[in-house]
Amino acid sequence: MKKLARVLSVACVAAAPLLAPGTAAAQFAKPEDAIKYRQSVLTVMANHFGRIAPVVRGQQPYDPEQVKADVEIVAMMSKLPWSAFGQGTEGGAARPAVWSEGAKFKQAQERLQGDIAKLVAAAQSGDLAQVRTAYGAVGASCKACHDNFRNR
Amino acid sequence: MKKLARVLSVACVAAAPLLAPGTAAAQFAKPEDAIKYRQSVLTVMANHFGRIAPVVRGQQPYDPEQVKADVEIVAMMSKLPWSAFGQGTEGGAARPAVWSEGAKFKQAQERLQGDIAKLVAAAQSGDLAQVRTAYGAVGASCKACHDNFRNR
Repeated sequence: MKKLARVLSVACVAAAPLLAPGTAAAQFAKPEDAIKYRQSVLTVMANHFGRIAPVVRGQQPYDPEQVKADVEIVAMMSKLPWSAFGQGTEGGAARPAVWSEGAKFKQAQERLQGDIAKLVAAAQSGDLAQVRTAYGAVGASCKACHDNFRNR
Repeated sequence: MKKLARVLSVACVAAAPLLAPGTAAAQFAKPEDAIKYRQSVLTVMANHFGRIAPVVRGQQPYDPEQVKADVEIVAMMSKLPWSAFGQGTEGGAARPAVWSEGAKFKQAQERLQGDIAKLVAAAQSGDLAQVRTAYGAVGASCKACHDNFRNR
């Protein structure tokens, strides 16, 4: 009986990704894993976004390759955290509004992604003025989402 | 006098990246920031590496595009944490050996990067057998580094 239970358990774990490919359920064994993952992604994103701050403020020389590299990391990270806000993963720094106002949260993600696409284009242009403008828009998107959906 | 101190302080913060571009000192205001950053990078890397496990074990169908996407994230993350192990950032799950056996730690990074380069090539080939072999090698590199340099 124990053996059967184990076989079924293994089979269920194996089948879960087949039933729900690409969902939070398939990617995270426990809600804490989803919370840790999304916080980690956002930490990496914020760090590399922050590295560009002294450049757009004129406190550090503009190195187009370095800015492109940081923007590339920001862009990649910006695609990842959303699947980790599935039902049942409430907690961390996320406010209940993430789940109770799902459409608004989705809009905030789309605004961010749109602004980051413009930052990618600006970084590729190598024109600091364009980078500065696009950087400000991304920063405003970050802030708007945090104001509505993040505690502390 | 206070004003002068503030001006000098601002100047030092602004100058730091000029003096040490690309170093941990320039990128992290506090040791805790470096620890949080490297742990976040490694969490994201481990998560996406782990998503490929059921594929190479034959528990999930092989979706070459999905594996390529996960490998791309693993490869990008694998370049990032090392600069966050600078002097003065001891702690977290890192053993003192990271700092006392710097050459060996560097070797472990290089082994990982070499194995990940092969995993990238394997993912691009679209051949599951190649992915499986390369995946095993990366896993062994992760483990070897953890065995020597990570607590718990």
